[in-house]
Amino acid sequence: MPDYAQRHKVAVVGSGNWGSTISKIIAENTKEHSDLFEPEVRMWVFEEEIEVPESSKHHSKLGGQKCKLTEVINEVHENVKYLPDIALPDNVVADPDLKSAVKSATLLVFNLPHQFIGKTLDGIVGHHLPYARGISCIKGVDVSDGTVTLHSELIMERLGIYCGALSGANIAPEVAAKKFCETTIGYDAPPMDLKQPDGSPKDNLIKVDEQRQHKTKPTHVKLHPVPQDLPHVDAELFESLFARPYFHVRHVRDVAGVALGGALKNIVALASGFVAGKGWGENAKAAIMRVGILEMVNFGRTWFPKSVDERTFTEESAGLADVISSCSGGRNFRSACHAVEQGISVNEIEEKELNGQKLQGTSTAYAVYDFLAKHDQLKQFPLFVAVHDILEEKATPDDLPALLDGKKT
Amino acid sequence: MPDYAQRHKVAVVGSGNWGSTISKIIAENTKEHSDLFEPEVRMWVFEEEIEVPESSKHHSKLGGQKCKLTEVINEVHENVKYLPDIALPDNVVADPDLKSAVKSATLLVFNLPHQFIGKTLDGIVGHHLPYARGISCIKGVDVSDGTVTLHSELIMERLGIYCGALSGANIAPEVAAKKFCETTIGYDAPPMDLKQPDGSPKDNLIKVDEQRQHKTKPTHVKLHPVPQDLPHVDAELFESLFARPYFHVRHVRDVAGVALGGALKNIVALASGFVAGKGWGENAKAAIMRVGILEMVNFGRTWFPKSVDERTFTEESAGLADVISSCSGGRNFRSACHAVEQGISVNEIEEKELNGQKLQGTSTAYAVYDFLAKHDQLKQFPLFVAVHDILEEKATPDDLPALLDGKKT
Repeated sequence: MPDYAQRHKVAVVGSGNWGSTISKIIAENTKEHSDLFEPEVRMWVFEEEIEVPESSKHHSKLGGQKCKLTEVINEVHENVKYLPDIALPDNVVADPDLKSAVKSATLLVFNLPHQFIGKTLDGIVGHHLPYARGISCIKGVDVSDGTVTLHSELIMERLGIYCGALSGANIAPEVAAKKFCETTIGYDAPPMDLKQPDGSPKDNLIKVDEQRQHKTKPTHVKLHPVPQDLPHVDAELFESLFARPYFHVRHVRDVAGVALGGALKNIVALASGFVAGKGWGENAKAAIMRVGILEMVNFGRTWFPKSVDERTFTEESAGLADVISSCSGGRNFRSACHAVEQGISVNEIEEKELNGQKLQGTSTAYAVYDFLAKHDQLKQFPLFVAVHDILEEKATPDDLPALLDGKKT
Repeated sequence: MPDYAQRHKVAVVGSGNWGSTISKIIAENTKEHSDLFEPEVRMWVFEEEIEVPESSKHHSKLGGQKCKLTEVINEVHENVKYLPDIALPDNVVADPDLKSAVKSATLLVFNLPHQFIGKTLDGIVGHHLPYARGISCIKGVDVSDGTVTLHSELIMERLGIYCGALSGANIAPEVAAKKFCETTIGYDAPPMDLKQPDGSPKDNLIKVDEQRQHKTKPTHVKLHPVPQDLPHVDAELFESLFARPYFHVRHVRDVAGVALGGALKNIVALASGFVAGKGWGENAKAAIMRVGILEMVNFGRTWFPKSVDERTFTEESAGLADVISSCSGGRNFRSACHAVEQGISVNEIEEKELNGQKLQGTSTAYAVYDFLAKHDQLKQFPLFVAVHDILEEKATPDDLPALLDGKKT
């Protein structure tokens, strides 16, 4: 009974544990809402050859063989490498060809590690539908040269399509196992997508970064309206695409807050790990989270005053809930905790326990510190600065109470 | 170098683990700020005979003997029964006589289990200074007959003195061990205490419960001004009285929010225990806390619209930080978690693990449910209602996601 001549086609760009989990959720929904979406969900997979484990129940036929990852996913409906032991719906179709994966998608969901986004967009440009709409599930923001760039902004600039963001307290294996959680979608429909009284699109020029106080040269992107024969792209459509009984969705218009939350919380998680490593207990961890959330509010208010709604940090899953779960577990928290317990630096933990791989929290802490220094705002963010100084071994976790109190140690 | 002819005298009414900890903090500060306070801190102790343990380092002289608790505290400077192994400053003086403890105190700090407050106030009336000011550290609120009464209001009504509130993520043994944490003081100075241009007191009639929408008969209390020769009683004075390098204090004017936070968080802690018992992980716990904080906001907004500032719940230690620490540990959380793990009711856990003692969370959940039902507001508080229904075994933790989604199971 579709009310529309056309239905949306969805492509997910990325297939790590979070990308595969989001593909699974979307595929459950495209089947259920076949009036709005074509059931098939294309998932772009960076092709690699893998050896299929003998053990798993889902792929006895392929056990022990060397196969291409896409072939395994399409054969046994499981991402055996990045999301093992979770059955994917059979309408998730793995595609190793980026251009083919995105070419007819009206909705593009970006879910890959942030370091790959630039090259991936290079591969998409010119091969996607000009009127597609995007959602970025990529954690982090790009901070360099005194400028904060959201991944959704990068996608808008490079592809010329509108892009929102999804983030929340969403540890992937828990979501994949259908354990209850919530997420936040930031999507501020461009004026042309809003229903006009006469049905005509209102405007098709969007200032990508008009909300930013600190960027000197704003970028304008000319958007193409979504064709009228497709279901309207709005909060309700994203509810149908993402919400499951175990995965509750809340909507905000504040895309910047959603993206910033997912980045800045990693700094707070390091601080929480430091006090946990000291054995200071639950009071101290809760105090760190509270101070961290208020510094996130202050960061948003200072540099995104026109767009950030502070309630994204204090009331939404992408804010306080993500802070809470990241400050109670996860790699940043654990690594900081181990560093203090063993009396070594976080850098040494990265060498020793992570094979030299850098934590998201440490790189964000350094980038944010440089950004604050450049804007002469170090004093306004004592927790973010303290984390940087502890990483640099200019301060110790014992100094934290005094540093947060504005007292120099 | 006192600037004032008189200094404040402080009495702490109560000597459990939290009362003894607060007495310790205050005594550290009265010594340090001897321009504002007399060093001696009177701590009223409900007298009991105890057997002093042989082992502890602080009281070798008394080990193995039967003694009165006040005598032990004054001899060895340790509350061996309720806060063992923590040295109290020698300017904490235990007093078994309530009337004598409070009679010359200009600042009264109430810190005792809520069930004893009524009888204790009976013992104080008429024996305290009429111009004293109070701070209530008593957790919980009194909900009965469709009315919520704060302990600070009860103290104001009974003693005719102004009373604020202190609450936060303050698990007593951690604070006593000087582990870093924060607290919130709610104190909304009565008009007469504010400095008037001509130095005269402005008004001495305070409507105790003017903020409440739901109480039909407001109570008026006639206050006595604090004498001019005493240091001014304001946020700064309380900072000097309570703040320590390891115990950070933030001030708000919203007394009701501070008190409500300390009560309602126990319901949220039960819900967090339920999902932890199910093994749903960090995402689910964070979601429960987020929803719980927003129901606290809604509760405050609905019944204390003139006084509650929702930021008390979303930004202060008495709000989100106390929710976080109570949802990660503590008796309410653990009991709910054990109940689900063992497949029995919380009631059975209370019988089995707590010798039949009722948890604060369960009694608050029942009282709040009855209150909401009486005001026909059950639908607006799905988490609070779900906790009640799970306690009553009308629902199970598996129903939580659907109940929070507004779907009847």
